Amino acid sequence: MLRTPENLIESTCADLASVRAQMPLVQCIINRVVAGHTANVLLALGASAAMVDIPGEAGMFADMASGLLVNLGTPTAEQREAMFEAVDGASKSGTPWVLDPVAVGSLPVRTPLASRLRALAPAIVRGNASEIVALADAGPGGRGVDSSLVVEAAVPSARSLAESIGAVVAVSGPEDLVVDRRGSARIRNGHPSLTQITGGGCALGAVMAAFAAIDDNPFAATVAATTVYTVAAELAAQRASGPGTFLAAHLDALATVTADDIRERAAIRV
Amino acid sequence: MLRTPENLIESTCADLASVRAQMPLVQCIINRVVAGHTANVLLALGASAAMVDIPGEAGMFADMASGLLVNLGTPTAEQREAMFEAVDGASKSGTPWVLDPVAVGSLPVRTPLASRLRALAPAIVRGNASEIVALADAGPGGRGVDSSLVVEAAVPSARSLAESIGAVVAVSGPEDLVVDRRGSARIRNGHPSLTQITGGGCALGAVMAAFAAIDDNPFAATVAATTVYTVAAELAAQRASGPGTFLAAHLDALATVTADDIRERAAIRV
Amino acid sequence: MLRTPENLIESTCADLASVRAQMPLVQCIINRVVAGHTANVLLALGASAAMVDIPGEAGMFADMASGLLVNLGTPTAEQREAMFEAVDGASKSGTPWVLDPVAVGSLPVRTPLASRLRALAPAIVRGNASEIVALADAGPGGRGVDSSLVVEAAVPSARSLAESIGAVVAVSGPEDLVVDRRGSARIRNGHPSLTQITGGGCALGAVMAAFAAIDDNPFAATVAATTVYTVAAELAAQRASGPGTFLAAHLDALATVTADDIRERAAIRV
Repeated sequence: MLRTPENLIESTCADLASVRAQMPLVQCIINRVVAGHTANVLLALGASAAMVDIPGEAGMFADMASGLLVNLGTPTAEQREAMFEAVDGASKSGTPWVLDPVAVGSLPVRTPLASRLRALAPAIVRGNASEIVALADAGPGGRGVDSSLVVEAAVPSARSLAESIGAVVAVSGPEDLVVDRRGSARIRNGHPSLTQITGGGCALGAVMAAFAAIDDNPFAATVAATTVYTVAAELAAQRASGPGTFLAAHLDALATVTADDIRERAAIRV
Repeated sequence: MLRTPENLIESTCADLASVRAQMPLVQCIINRVVAGHTANVLLALGASAAMVDIPGEAGMFADMASGLLVNLGTPTAEQREAMFEAVDGASKSGTPWVLDPVAVGSLPVRTPLASRLRALAPAIVRGNASEIVALADAGPGGRGVDSSLVVEAAVPSARSLAESIGAVVAVSGPEDLVVDRRGSARIRNGHPSLTQITGGGCALGAVMAAFAAIDDNPFAATVAATTVYTVAAELAAQRASGPGTFLAAHLDALATVTADDIRERAAIRV
Repeated sequence: MLRTPENLIESTCADLASVRAQMPLVQCIINRVVAGHTANVLLALGASAAMVDIPGEAGMFADMASGLLVNLGTPTAEQREAMFEAVDGASKSGTPWVLDPVAVGSLPVRTPLASRLRALAPAIVRGNASEIVALADAGPGGRGVDSSLVVEAAVPSARSLAESIGAVVAVSGPEDLVVDRRGSARIRNGHPSLTQITGGGCALGAVMAAFAAIDDNPFAATVAATTVYTVAAELAAQRASGPGTFLAAHLDALATVTADDIRERAAIRV
């Protein structure tokens, strides 16, 4: 596929239809803060969610799942063990997986954990600018889950990370960035309300896993996931009067967003 | 009680009033994905919720609680230990308990765990068709938390499970099935939105524990819990424009559903 | 500051503006039932939230955070270890921290845990009447998370606890009580819907940590947190038709409540 905005918009629409038709099962090893919301986001989109994250089951389940998310938000000892089982299972069965290195940088458990995981061939790495810079070993990381860097400051790190591990790297921000070895795309959709709810970024990682499950092209899948998710946020913001009603409206919009909405609103540049 | 639809509807109305009057305290050992939503469902109904699920406390608390839910969604090692403590405490004090064997079948930790728990005299077992078939040792289980079987395919398994362990067995689906040694009932209420949110089934298990706490007849309690929950879902769907607003509207409806709503809408057959 | 109602209302308005301007980062070690909701409450207010609660990271993070909440709702072994690390980190760096002794009284893990923590100089202790009485060693505790005592019955315990550990002690109820060695204040705001959702009290503990982060006077900060949170609940109740829509409306109201709303509604007496 030639990576023009037009082609990426059409593949986004096709991917959205495929997710709804195929209902990919996404295994999530994810922090407890946003586990429920993330499952609701996947279900609203038409995908299925299963949070199988205990040792002894996570690896076998990754073989049954169509996609896998590994999110480092609250990595208990059992979850850390389950992550490696699941990634091993996903690798053996060809299940694409997404790494979300939440709050890596200076924290001494998750930072080396993320380094080990990044070497295990994730299809996609998603984070905010601070997390991507930290994962690429180019900086000290941010303050917890909020990015203290702007997206543009992470471009060199995103490129070098994509180059070194061969993954698609996505950086969330007011304009989202998607990079791989061949090039990049930027998506200027979304709404500030996504930063006023917890899990706005974490759930996007799960959506990327759902799209990677039905599209063999992880770059196009990452662009599609980001575009659908952020266009739905725009539609939701029109019906919301604050972060609480936005949360509900975003789930509604994920369930109802159409290809026409995507074509009308998607602001993709390459 | 003669199990006519009319009698079951009246006992449902009486049970709903009793839950609201007595505010039974329901202990939930439940997966982290839906813990918050489950507590909100219990509170909306007028019951109380406490997620006491650590070893050393779970057993003593089961003695104080009026009902207990054991849900296998994300069974960490500590939760597994707490489950046996709690069931032991519930048995000694006569607290009725509900077993929800989430995703049992092929997964190697929870499947033997569910087998051990089913032998410990739950008052009610609740699952989707795949889970009930798997727990009855009659089939291979489904794919995660979604049922790949229709309810009717689980009828023989539900009957044999009810017979062998002496429990009420409830199978969730478009028409819910409730079976015990004496017979069965079917409830055709609810709304597809319940499958578009996470925990739609898990929370129903907690509601069954609340109703079993105030009704000595576990069959009638299971029918009542199912009917109240699914009639409230119908009321919620009238106010919702997608899964996000449905979530909120379902909690509202659980708090406001009346005996008249039940009488008008309940579609029970025996 | 002379503790008149007028002065407390003005410091509440000033604190609300400071939270929104400074966006204090609040570390929460909190039960999994309400973790997501608590993060959403902090974000709606304009603060930041991070649930860093694993051993090896919790202490270091407490040094980076502006406030810390230690909530005993579902204290797993890892969380218990992380609590002491975090409190140690907070003490060394002067980060104010809030202790929420959920359901202490007779439960044998959390009750001695709370006793050890109360000796480690929390800035604020928040609970319902039963929990505060139990923590002050003056009574047997309540039934789980619901208080079986009225606020007035806890006044002597709150005073003696405040005296003995030098903390601000807050007792939640229809009229909230805030006590320290110098005196007390009562806030009669809020709405019964706060008791129909899970985490209504737990999230208030996190809000207290956010306000303590930006106000060196922990008594004024506790009054301010309570007033903002309960006034927002009143505004939310005007837009809600049950507990589900109240949940969303409360988040909306926390994001939009103004100083004028506070001045118009705050019912503080000293």
